[in-house]
Amino acid sequence: MSSVHVLGTGATPVGKLTGKTIRNMAIEAYSELLETTQIVPDQIIVSNMSAEQFTGQNHLGVFIADQLGLAGTPALRIEAACGSGGVAIHQAYVSIKSGLYDSVLVLGIEKMTEVSTPEATRYLAGAADMEWEISPGISFVGLNAMIARRYMYEFNITSEDLLEFSINSHKNGLTNPKAMFQKEITLEKAMKSKIVADPLRVMDCSPVSDGCAAVLLTSEKIKRENSLLPSSQIIGSRYATDSISLQDRKDLCELKASKLAFNQAIKDAKISIKDIKAFEVHDAFSIMSALSIESFGLAKQGEATILAKEGQIALDGEYPINTLGGLKSRGHPVGATGVYQVMENHLQLTDQAGKNQVIGIEYALSQNIGGSGATISVNILKRS
Amino acid sequence: MSSVHVLGTGATPVGKLTGKTIRNMAIEAYSELLETTQIVPDQIIVSNMSAEQFTGQNHLGVFIADQLGLAGTPALRIEAACGSGGVAIHQAYVSIKSGLYDSVLVLGIEKMTEVSTPEATRYLAGAADMEWEISPGISFVGLNAMIARRYMYEFNITSEDLLEFSINSHKNGLTNPKAMFQKEITLEKAMKSKIVADPLRVMDCSPVSDGCAAVLLTSEKIKRENSLLPSSQIIGSRYATDSISLQDRKDLCELKASKLAFNQAIKDAKISIKDIKAFEVHDAFSIMSALSIESFGLAKQGEATILAKEGQIALDGEYPINTLGGLKSRGHPVGATGVYQVMENHLQLTDQAGKNQVIGIEYALSQNIGGSGATISVNILKRS
Repeated sequence: MSSVHVLGTGATPVGKLTGKTIRNMAIEAYSELLETTQIVPDQIIVSNMSAEQFTGQNHLGVFIADQLGLAGTPALRIEAACGSGGVAIHQAYVSIKSGLYDSVLVLGIEKMTEVSTPEATRYLAGAADMEWEISPGISFVGLNAMIARRYMYEFNITSEDLLEFSINSHKNGLTNPKAMFQKEITLEKAMKSKIVADPLRVMDCSPVSDGCAAVLLTSEKIKRENSLLPSSQIIGSRYATDSISLQDRKDLCELKASKLAFNQAIKDAKISIKDIKAFEVHDAFSIMSALSIESFGLAKQGEATILAKEGQIALDGEYPINTLGGLKSRGHPVGATGVYQVMENHLQLTDQAGKNQVIGIEYALSQNIGGSGATISVNILKRS
Repeated sequence: MSSVHVLGTGATPVGKLTGKTIRNMAIEAYSELLETTQIVPDQIIVSNMSAEQFTGQNHLGVFIADQLGLAGTPALRIEAACGSGGVAIHQAYVSIKSGLYDSVLVLGIEKMTEVSTPEATRYLAGAADMEWEISPGISFVGLNAMIARRYMYEFNITSEDLLEFSINSHKNGLTNPKAMFQKEITLEKAMKSKIVADPLRVMDCSPVSDGCAAVLLTSEKIKRENSLLPSSQIIGSRYATDSISLQDRKDLCELKASKLAFNQAIKDAKISIKDIKAFEVHDAFSIMSALSIESFGLAKQGEATILAKEGQIALDGEYPINTLGGLKSRGHPVGATGVYQVMENHLQLTDQAGKNQVIGIEYALSQNIGGSGATISVNILKRS
């Protein structure tokens, strides 16, 4: 069974890309990929949450393939809400492992900023159980706020503690040219930001964003034929689920699916967590950073914020988290996010992370969440 | 690399399932599957075109997994418009070939009947290019009507000729207890049906439908451990794409993606087309039956209707087409259709097709189309 490699990446900056359609965005990201590699993919996997609602366009696999001049090539779209990207990477990994495909282009895309806030809120709520969670009146941010409130109560955590994760993400995003917000924030400023859903403030929440990222995965054979290209290797790729509704979870303060996926992926990777020097985690809300870190065993339950306060999650810390800004600062084009994360892992492992380069890095991990923790993937990459 | 087997199926009847939500429908289809096999899947692939628009619910992989009591299990949703189901079967096949998964549940689902006709028309148009095809004013039926008109012009074909496919589908659907329309139609009656988009009449078009079908795919290992279960084997599974827009195709009367997928699948299957005795083809519109048959080489371009008139596509003919009613009579719950088709192949190959049983059948094929021919999959099954 072939090993699986990343041989190139490309992406649009994340932001409010006014005037750019999903067609333009896909071409822009793929063009950047073509600057490093001209390998023709034999499958295309598009990850996207909700283009049919945000833009009207469905049937995204072939739609994108056609824009890239690749009509003919098998193409499909994978959806797992905000976790679509990481799952798409996993499925591309599976495609190559199967021996049926040698090179798979994963393209994550979302165009969110051309609808009104109430519309965006309604579409994003589709990641939760519409009938049992959302129809009684809560929003998707509200669900995350409930988790944050419970976590703060259980472990005696304050809003200030949680905001440390956003401060870290913004600090790293400052020097990422593709980040939506290239500015640092202070705790004081963050604490003054408006409350969205108590206790979550604007500065606890990632933004509504547009973005498109492309990652080329290949077999060992293609990698050998292109030995001069900077490459990294996927050595663990797993995902798992949990009940879609908060009401069905025994412990709101635990990401069961993340634990499952992480434990399997690190076992497949045959490394220790101490080997990993970049963790791109799904900080759609600051509370998710805390739960994610704990799901890997980096901190005990309730103790993740200590790592943040001690500086261990900084670029030069023991466990650098969201080295290129995370969802909070790089931005969160929902269905594309997981692909951005894997691209960022690859940039780190090929020494292309510029001012955000982690020194001495051999392994990197990305974790991508769909819903309030219902679908979670973990992809682990290794320097080639 | 493991061979891939179908070990059980289950489905709701297709129709206007008033009062049943996607939650109820998924449970109903899976419950029927459980009556024959209790094998726990280690991955779930949901195929669905547009639940977020028809019902508001997104994140369908884990949503369905959770309803079936399978939260924890990796689950994702694949979308390729009306061709989602066949592509989902392919990707499940890939999952098993990869060695990462031994049993994959493919569940196709669509709930279409609870929105207004203009809404349904808008959502279905998402399968075409929204910006370049639909926004100038044509509907999805209109695109198919243009193909039909060109075909009639090129090959001197009449509306009556094309309707032969609908008559055949209705004849077979009459005795399929899961079919939406269990009634025969005559040419005279069909010709009196209302024109939807000239030259296509109501009787050329498949209905807006609700439905859910479940198919369990397993590895050789699981198949051996359950040797008493009726099973069939997938011996060829491929899909391909073409330009999404009609305007970009050189020949409107040819399904290039279908040719590509069929030629690869039959090569993998190592059989001749003459071995196949059930062709479930995507007759969303009668014209698509003609083009599909020709894409397999069963008839020369422009000559498919001769097969229909000669009775060769009937249950007791040389090339039985749509043996359980096809999209026209069984119904067309868009994202679920391709899964129904593979279920129907399996029923034929395990002698469970009741009054619709094709005698002496060893091989069966299903072909599932997304858009106006942009994504097409071909799955070939064999009696075990």
